[in-house]
Amino acid sequence: MAAAAIAIPSYVRSEPGSHQLRLAQYPESTAPPKADVHKIATEWVDSLNNALNTSDYDSLHNLFLPDSCWRDQLGISWDFHTFSGPEKIITFLKSSPHGSRIKKISIDDSSALHAPNVTAADFNGKVSGVGSFLIIETDVGRGPGIVRLMQDKDGKWKAFTLFTAMHELNDHKEMIGGNRPSGVNDGSNPGRKNWQERRTAMENFEGDNEPTVLILGAGQGGLTSAARLQNLGVPTLVVDRNPRVGDNWRNRYHQLVLHDPVWYDHLPYVPFPSHWPIFTPKDKLAEWLESYVRILELNVWTQTNLESAKWDESKRQWTVNLKRKKADGTMEDRSLHPHHIIQATGHSGEMKFPQMKGMEDFKGDRLCHSSQFKGAKANSQGKKAIVVGCCNSGHDIAQDFYEHGYDVTIVQRSSACVVSSGCVLDVLLKGLYEEGGPATEDADLLFISIPNPMLKRMHVDATIEISRRDADLIAGLQEAGFKTDTGPDESGFFMKYFQHGGGYYIDVGCSQLIIDRKIKVKQGSEISEVKERGLLFEDGTELEADEIVFATGYQNMRSTARKIFGDEVADRTKDVWGFDEEGELRTMWRRTGHPGFWFFGGNLALCRYFSRMLAIQIKAIEEGIMKYEDP
Amino acid sequence: MAAAAIAIPSYVRSEPGSHQLRLAQYPESTAPPKADVHKIATEWVDSLNNALNTSDYDSLHNLFLPDSCWRDQLGISWDFHTFSGPEKIITFLKSSPHGSRIKKISIDDSSALHAPNVTAADFNGKVSGVGSFLIIETDVGRGPGIVRLMQDKDGKWKAFTLFTAMHELNDHKEMIGGNRPSGVNDGSNPGRKNWQERRTAMENFEGDNEPTVLILGAGQGGLTSAARLQNLGVPTLVVDRNPRVGDNWRNRYHQLVLHDPVWYDHLPYVPFPSHWPIFTPKDKLAEWLESYVRILELNVWTQTNLESAKWDESKRQWTVNLKRKKADGTMEDRSLHPHHIIQATGHSGEMKFPQMKGMEDFKGDRLCHSSQFKGAKANSQGKKAIVVGCCNSGHDIAQDFYEHGYDVTIVQRSSACVVSSGCVLDVLLKGLYEEGGPATEDADLLFISIPNPMLKRMHVDATIEISRRDADLIAGLQEAGFKTDTGPDESGFFMKYFQHGGGYYIDVGCSQLIIDRKIKVKQGSEISEVKERGLLFEDGTELEADEIVFATGYQNMRSTARKIFGDEVADRTKDVWGFDEEGELRTMWRRTGHPGFWFFGGNLALCRYFSRMLAIQIKAIEEGIMKYEDP
Repeated sequence: MAAAAIAIPSYVRSEPGSHQLRLAQYPESTAPPKADVHKIATEWVDSLNNALNTSDYDSLHNLFLPDSCWRDQLGISWDFHTFSGPEKIITFLKSSPHGSRIKKISIDDSSALHAPNVTAADFNGKVSGVGSFLIIETDVGRGPGIVRLMQDKDGKWKAFTLFTAMHELNDHKEMIGGNRPSGVNDGSNPGRKNWQERRTAMENFEGDNEPTVLILGAGQGGLTSAARLQNLGVPTLVVDRNPRVGDNWRNRYHQLVLHDPVWYDHLPYVPFPSHWPIFTPKDKLAEWLESYVRILELNVWTQTNLESAKWDESKRQWTVNLKRKKADGTMEDRSLHPHHIIQATGHSGEMKFPQMKGMEDFKGDRLCHSSQFKGAKANSQGKKAIVVGCCNSGHDIAQDFYEHGYDVTIVQRSSACVVSSGCVLDVLLKGLYEEGGPATEDADLLFISIPNPMLKRMHVDATIEISRRDADLIAGLQEAGFKTDTGPDESGFFMKYFQHGGGYYIDVGCSQLIIDRKIKVKQGSEISEVKERGLLFEDGTELEADEIVFATGYQNMRSTARKIFGDEVADRTKDVWGFDEEGELRTMWRRTGHPGFWFFGGNLALCRYFSRMLAIQIKAIEEGIMKYEDP
Repeated sequence: MAAAAIAIPSYVRSEPGSHQLRLAQYPESTAPPKADVHKIATEWVDSLNNALNTSDYDSLHNLFLPDSCWRDQLGISWDFHTFSGPEKIITFLKSSPHGSRIKKISIDDSSALHAPNVTAADFNGKVSGVGSFLIIETDVGRGPGIVRLMQDKDGKWKAFTLFTAMHELNDHKEMIGGNRPSGVNDGSNPGRKNWQERRTAMENFEGDNEPTVLILGAGQGGLTSAARLQNLGVPTLVVDRNPRVGDNWRNRYHQLVLHDPVWYDHLPYVPFPSHWPIFTPKDKLAEWLESYVRILELNVWTQTNLESAKWDESKRQWTVNLKRKKADGTMEDRSLHPHHIIQATGHSGEMKFPQMKGMEDFKGDRLCHSSQFKGAKANSQGKKAIVVGCCNSGHDIAQDFYEHGYDVTIVQRSSACVVSSGCVLDVLLKGLYEEGGPATEDADLLFISIPNPMLKRMHVDATIEISRRDADLIAGLQEAGFKTDTGPDESGFFMKYFQHGGGYYIDVGCSQLIIDRKIKVKQGSEISEVKERGLLFEDGTELEADEIVFATGYQNMRSTARKIFGDEVADRTKDVWGFDEEGELRTMWRRTGHPGFWFFGGNLALCRYFSRMLAIQIKAIEEGIMKYEDP
């Protein structure tokens, strides 16, 4: 039996070339430590400092459990790494030209949450150890860390997970808090411009002013990156084709509301206020992004097209030609020379729109991709709609059709991981992102500090709990002929998001409509062709339709790079999303293979955290602290 | 010598009818308590609870120092009170139909700042006692309190200041935090509107929807009031004559920057982010207010005029006719029936523009009031400008002229209290409103909890320190012929603001221009008349001018009420600003004498705090918890 003949089940599907993520094992369950947690943590940190400073690899080996991970972000290299087990750590350190880069690790005692605590390493709180936030000082900056220590069978405390990061370059702090600008030039400055005049000049890059960074796309990815860069003093311009900031959300389907709750969705610097709804409606998010631009004084050109972009390898800069429709309606051509381009066009860059026989002959009212769908039409009782695809967009669109009186069928081609919105809040985000929970920055660190193999392990346990809570929901769906799955290695929808960017539905009401047979499901047979008034399936059945929407997702970002920048650029970049062999996400938020070219995206939470990491890399390059080729 | 013949020096000037504020005395200096501060505070609070619950006025008398104050806001009555000394407290309680209203006072142990602490009662930290935040529970709601206890000469702990307030009505909590909306209607709701459709309908009060509250003016006063009311579920409409929210700031002079720092200026619900400059430029504040409206979903109609307003005493509602220019340029007439009108037109409602002989014959380029001044003109070398008035606006305008090359003279009619911007930050706001300082809400309580007679006392001491730090500045100004003062009873500029709304300059650079003779001062003689090309003074001297700006301030809010609503309304209201006989500010943020009519205003900090107090009063009336005539 040839391997190629084995169909890959859809629930393990991932981006081409992506490595399947290892599923970590927990250490033996240990009793909660009776000893002084502060002493345990301090002794371990002291030993690690000694081992790193003296390159004593034998001692270092002894500080990590065999199935442990050290996850690092810009601390010990200019990349993201997850080293599984002490051998890999030592191999890396031996090969690194500048050793560990880490000068000192300290216990962070600044709050009760940060200081050493009894902590659980697993989802169910049965594997107990000592955890602590850390302060990491490297040769070029500083940042946070988190260690989770467990006892080995000899009772020795060793790291199960270590997370280290560099979040701030020495001498290049963000211009916030105590480092904020004064806002006023006191004294006598004949001819001085006021804020509005300076702001207008900056926004338009008047005179010879050039942005150091050009960002394509004014969604959450582009704007958070711009905000971070701006607060590091890096001149940045964001361009977008749409008339208004937020149109990328405004233009989506009528009833769209974020499926993640507010506590998980805060953007950098300007958190959502306390009156903000738990789930943000699309137009409200669009308004927020517009306000975000103004509050943070980001330089955004809307109605602007990138006409061409050419990389000069020797000068390490781009020449880009932009065509901008200005607020007064006139067109302007600008040629700029940024050192960096960030592609933040989102997943929504290129739609996956399967081309099928008969499509052009469809005689119904509408046949489109979900990204082109503006909403169901009023007074459509008796109309028939088909939605192809059963992830978040497919469900929301089917629900929208139903609520407008259509007779709706979902065509399910691959199984979907369905989880109730309540379970996302009460099981997955509980304790981290919730009302009265930790500060967002702390929650992010607690989350990011879990290396992906461990995260997958935890999500397997979480999925057991979710399946228990959602048992009726899942049973009802299966009875209705809807095929569900529980993700790769039964690790649930979140891992599907990471490795594939889709394949799940967070239920906000549509599942009950399916269970109640108010929305029908066609499952188990591929579409054979589009008919004038419906779809024909390979099993010979036919479904009538006045409208057909293909909620079939989006291609990955590299396909967009190829379309915008051409093969020369796209061929130099590596594949995007999915996991590398270490278990880190591929190519996102870090070097792509092409100097001066970066991919940026993700949900609001990922943009919040990784915008900082991207901005620091660019700042480090601009300040000559990092070279693009540095390891 | 008849009293009327004595000219009132300008530094004690206050609104007509305002009481001169008593200057409190500190108790004897006491050594820091050696005993358990928690025990001291708890015993005192227990005794107070007992005395209030049993109406034991002898015991109550014994819990307050002779020169003490109890300041209450909506806790023991539906008004603001400061009772000086135990007799006044007891007299009030005896006369109150519902006793103290307070059911229980508790120590607030929720944080180290709130819990009982050794605290100073004075500016210099020499008068030491025990302070604690409190939790006040009344028959209708709950709120914060602060007590400062001092030892009397027998060593008994008694209150020097007690502050109590009601900040939240039972069963009518703000819709924030754990009480925030979900943002999504899960499930099947055929025909449901999305957020944008609901928002548009609400903003326009479509159909039969009526606002309960109409607010005139979309400045910080109107918007903060609207935000508070909205989060209490009271439908509110803000109208403004200007085309855009923020135009009240945008239209002011070119170089205007707030003279208060960012930490003091936060608005409710949406604090300024950490990158915000210390001093906010006017156009940036205008942008912020526009974003504030959108973020909080406030209902604001710009380009809207109040055509008429008629109060129906029996129905207790207004009939108002509004003329609105809509976004598409069409005009709309609307008749609405709010229960309440809040006049939030600011000090800037009616300018004080002295009418002088010869004004209409002035042949120079410009003669206007500071509110009409849009900025000095470019390339004006050799032009002569006169600024009449030497408070904040006068100085800023003179500086603007100077920086554009004009030959500038300030005409000083009254002395001004000048304080360096640095002293405001380092002396007055230090410890309360600063980077890394207490949470804004805590800082507000620490500030508001100081009854005004004590506040005045503290500002006398602060003014001594400021005079020491600013000695060179003041000496330089006096040498240059500029007359300075130190406010009423030498209590500095802040008391001038409270009792008069002006009379000071927070120096951001203009004083040095005066000291350096780059800006000239004409002082000591009144203007006799305006000439074709300048001003003639009573001392016979004449000053040439191409431009004359009268930075002569604004009338009080009641004059605006008279202009907008006529005598019938204005005659029923009491005077505004200045102090009542207890030392509370008159008529602001509380009942005015006219049912359904309220004055609202103040700097951003006052609006932040008192918007809550106003909203609670209106909510209490709407819910039938309070009647307008209740004591």
